[in-house]
Amino acid sequence: MGNVFVSVGMSLDGFLAGPNGGPKNPLGDGGVAIHQWAFQTRAFMEHLGMEGGDSLSRDNEIAQHTFERTGAYILGRRMFDEGEYNWPENAPFHAPVIVLTNSPRIPWERKGGTTFYFASDTVEAALEKARKAAGNKDVRISGGASVIQQYFNAGLVDELDIQLAPMFLGKGTRLFDHMETLKAKLEIVEVINSPIITHLKYKIAPV
Amino acid sequence: MGNVFVSVGMSLDGFLAGPNGGPKNPLGDGGVAIHQWAFQTRAFMEHLGMEGGDSLSRDNEIAQHTFERTGAYILGRRMFDEGEYNWPENAPFHAPVIVLTNSPRIPWERKGGTTFYFASDTVEAALEKARKAAGNKDVRISGGASVIQQYFNAGLVDELDIQLAPMFLGKGTRLFDHMETLKAKLEIVEVINSPIITHLKYKIAPV
Repeated sequence: MGNVFVSVGMSLDGFLAGPNGGPKNPLGDGGVAIHQWAFQTRAFMEHLGMEGGDSLSRDNEIAQHTFERTGAYILGRRMFDEGEYNWPENAPFHAPVIVLTNSPRIPWERKGGTTFYFASDTVEAALEKARKAAGNKDVRISGGASVIQQYFNAGLVDELDIQLAPMFLGKGTRLFDHMETLKAKLEIVEVINSPIITHLKYKIAPV
Repeated sequence: MGNVFVSVGMSLDGFLAGPNGGPKNPLGDGGVAIHQWAFQTRAFMEHLGMEGGDSLSRDNEIAQHTFERTGAYILGRRMFDEGEYNWPENAPFHAPVIVLTNSPRIPWERKGGTTFYFASDTVEAALEKARKAAGNKDVRISGGASVIQQYFNAGLVDELDIQLAPMFLGKGTRLFDHMETLKAKLEIVEVINSPIITHLKYKIAPV
């Protein structure tokens, strides 16, 4: 069975998206800058179905590994709604995606191997579906912040990757706004620095 | 003329102190764990006038360098008040300390080379006093969070060192709660990892 992991970009002041987010502005004002490093990698651009990007950098290697290890994704409903408007026909997951929602609908298959499944389940039950869909690969809790916090606070995350961007956003959505401290002990696994981003990897051990 | 720098510990969820802080609990509930790495270094223990600590680790080298470079400190009034109760007779600065306050008093000299000066000045004027006191050495903006934010937002900080602790605090005082994003551009200078703490160093360039 694979691991359950979070891999997410964060500004130095703790935001994963800027203010005024919405379907036409999914990362909020200024939020796209958090992911600037990714747009410079071949792996990320390819995942979006686009040209360009550096295939030789350490950043690219890390992005590539994150995509390859992932067998299924879990998304909050708001993140799905924002993406539904913006993502091109070729949705950038290329794997099963479990969407947490109170309004279930039938699965929605898109080109490129992405199928969205809608689950009005507990976070535990949704994770079980994702695990089955992922096979031997890992399950990525994609977001948004509230979904990530729920999975942490339920003690269900094994590993946390943060891409720490050298910037202040000032306002927006905080990645870690409601963390329960006693539920987990974090261990530093490795830190890899590039000129534009710092990759932090932690292992989460239950207390 | 030296640089103006901030060097501060932060939990992964962005807190520099836990909740319920006060003179008898200066780092707030759980906050001391952010500084666990420092208590394992000889440099920090020596600075506190205590025995013990590892003198050979990279963490120790970094702590030592931070003390040696600092010619003067700037503190907010609340941080001073909390320390006044807790710090031993041999105050752990060993350098001039400018305390920002609305209630000035005469300078207060303590054993070990620490003298507190009380300034009801603008942040700019207090910095000028600290620069003069520091000579060729650097000025450290020690905190608390509000003072650090004021210096950042006034465009007066040259360098930011964060000791990022692998832990969630959940509640408390956020280091970066009111940052103005357009005032500064951050560049990663270096990242040094140890098993228990991650040292992040940024250069701040005015926009």
